Amino acid sequence: MSHVFEDKKKIISRIRRIKGQLEAVERGLDEGKECFAVLQTLSACRGGLNGLMGELVEGHIKEHVMKNPNQPKSSQDKSALDLIKIMKTYWK
Amino acid sequence: MSHVFEDKKKIISRIRRIKGQLEAVERGLDEGKECFAVLQTLSACRGGLNGLMGELVEGHIKEHVMKNPNQPKSSQDKSALDLIKIMKTYWK
Amino acid sequence: MSHVFEDKKKIISRIRRIKGQLEAVERGLDEGKECFAVLQTLSACRGGLNGLMGELVEGHIKEHVMKNPNQPKSSQDKSALDLIKIMKTYWK
Amino acid sequence: MSHVFEDKKKIISRIRRIKGQLEAVERGLDEGKECFAVLQTLSACRGGLNGLMGELVEGHIKEHVMKNPNQPKSSQDKSALDLIKIMKTYWK
Repeated sequence: MSHVFEDKKKIISRIRRIKGQLEAVERGLDEGKECFAVLQTLSACRGGLNGLMGELVEGHIKEHVMKNPNQPKSSQDKSALDLIKIMKTYWK
Repeated sequence: MSHVFEDKKKIISRIRRIKGQLEAVERGLDEGKECFAVLQTLSACRGGLNGLMGELVEGHIKEHVMKNPNQPKSSQDKSALDLIKIMKTYWK
Repeated sequence: MSHVFEDKKKIISRIRRIKGQLEAVERGLDEGKECFAVLQTLSACRGGLNGLMGELVEGHIKEHVMKNPNQPKSSQDKSALDLIKIMKTYWK
Repeated sequence: MSHVFEDKKKIISRIRRIKGQLEAVERGLDEGKECFAVLQTLSACRGGLNGLMGELVEGHIKEHVMKNPNQPKSSQDKSALDLIKIMKTYWK
């Protein structure tokens, strides 16, 4: 997963934020926190995870599926960029 | 969030499994693991989180929205059960 | 489904818009239209359908699950409003 | 969208089934049908649309993004197949 190299720090910090939210959910359940607050945190988790998934799938396509992600010229590469656009509507 | 009390152990262990998967994703990125394997783990995470969300929303409805979750008689309670059925198709 | 009565025209016109998009997808496939354009239309369809689902689920909760949707006072009614807020993050 | 050619009939009939369900939703609203039944039909619509989207995205990848979908040998083509596997967990 070399394509995350340059953004690695950012990606890792996103993962840690999601982990932190999961821990808040666990603590909330443990301490009998108000249900709605727990569900909101869990919902934020889910949003964070979807965004992360989208980012990594985009990275996968650019690094591994495309030949020239920086200068897409072949019809395959252009269709891969189209695919990214479509995929993005699923993870926003 | 008293409604999770009886299942609390089970719920907590589900949260920890998801956290463990997130840590595997983090490690995978850190160690340059193969991209597809990392995405599969992240996808499993997302499945786990969706399932957890569904479980807690169902608990919220039964405990806080319904009057008699064990013996639903009012039309409100019955409509709440219908709602749970519809919601479940979103988190399976 | 009396709760849609006042918004019925609006809801019906949303359904028709989605149907129109589906017909555009069908025509696009039939006429060998460019793949990306067809996928974009289908994606718009999906967005429209999710929005509609959210609207009707919210209507269901307000009309059938809550006792006083206009002046929620009981803890059940307040928890139902919380539920709507959580649900909305799933259909936006 | 030549890749749907051989399955075109099947795809078109799926679109028509979804359209038929949407029409049932419209009729249901119009005739004041029971809310839960309408929501179930709408939910089936959404399932059908997700399945269709997955099918067409897979077709897009195989036809336009891959060079040899039938005999994938290049690392790009293999990574595109991995991508399809990941995507499928989103539309099942």
